[in-house]
Amino acid sequence: MTTIYGMTDSGNCYKPRLLMAKLGRPFRHVEVSSNDGGTRSEAFTAKNPNAMVPLLEFDDGRLLAESNAMLLHLGEGTRFLPKDAYERALAYQWLFFEQYSHEPYIAVRRALLTFPNRKKDATPERLQVTLERGNKALRVMEKRLGETPFFAGQSLSVADIALYAYTHVAGEGGFDLGDYPAVGVWLKRVESDPGHVPIGWLP
Amino acid sequence: MTTIYGMTDSGNCYKPRLLMAKLGRPFRHVEVSSNDGGTRSEAFTAKNPNAMVPLLEFDDGRLLAESNAMLLHLGEGTRFLPKDAYERALAYQWLFFEQYSHEPYIAVRRALLTFPNRKKDATPERLQVTLERGNKALRVMEKRLGETPFFAGQSLSVADIALYAYTHVAGEGGFDLGDYPAVGVWLKRVESDPGHVPIGWLP
Repeated sequence: MTTIYGMTDSGNCYKPRLLMAKLGRPFRHVEVSSNDGGTRSEAFTAKNPNAMVPLLEFDDGRLLAESNAMLLHLGEGTRFLPKDAYERALAYQWLFFEQYSHEPYIAVRRALLTFPNRKKDATPERLQVTLERGNKALRVMEKRLGETPFFAGQSLSVADIALYAYTHVAGEGGFDLGDYPAVGVWLKRVESDPGHVPIGWLP
Repeated sequence: MTTIYGMTDSGNCYKPRLLMAKLGRPFRHVEVSSNDGGTRSEAFTAKNPNAMVPLLEFDDGRLLAESNAMLLHLGEGTRFLPKDAYERALAYQWLFFEQYSHEPYIAVRRALLTFPNRKKDATPERLQVTLERGNKALRVMEKRLGETPFFAGQSLSVADIALYAYTHVAGEGGFDLGDYPAVGVWLKRVESDPGHVPIGWLP
């Protein structure tokens, strides 16, 4: 059976769990945390030298890191990857946007404010930079969601799963989603898609 | 004809140019820079609200942002995207690794040290963090390249193009590639692949 190594409350780790749940694919969850040194242990870095979760292990022992790579791999041939080449390219675009322009600010600010071992890094300057850039990412999302119901177009795709993961808990990072009405409507749209499970869900 | 908006000396902008050159696909280059406000102009943000280059414009006016999304889209059906599903997943993995764990340190440290308008951001703390995390990324690359000739396996893929873009100029960011012999051999391997063009090349 496929194993997902990850943290229960991490948005990145939630992404492959949410997609697996939607696909009805069984998997085993193994808790490995960056908060207690688990991701930096010798046993774990032998599997992922980049010392990060989530990590996917297939039943033949092959490994796959990077949450958005998992979404693309697991989503292949399903309704979560657009068949149209340009819409598929837009799904790629928003997955990279999520990892470069969104997660490093929206997820990181949540971690700085809520993970006890990150409090020492929560300097006023760091909180300010993550607030500004996180709001910039939310403005870009708001604009897109004023044009199309989902990021890659008319249907929910892996890009929505990736962006949902940390956007729906952005309030925990001090972001006011009330400023972004189209984002709010989209969050509800994602939640009403069949097979939705919440961030803490485990198999 | 396809247009690529970008900066001549940016590794991110070099990626789609290098792939287009290898594919023998003609395109038009339009210089838009983040160093003189070009990416933040009203005309440009109307095309890319995230205010970043590169940006691809197809001849029908459709737009695509994010350098690695361009590589995946342009590489579809070519030798630059593995046919095997798992090798393709590994190409995805290394593309996301590049944007999350490599570019924000190796490319950013180069920008801090070489772009005049970024000098104000080059604090000792910032230089230290980017040095440590950039070297961590290089160690992860070194380990992988001790196992396989290219990142996704036996053949050069879009993952190699993405990682080559800023690794081959890492010295400009103060990284000593002499510490990473397998990376050095791989750089030569990428450069000897047919159709290679250097970072400053324009059509």
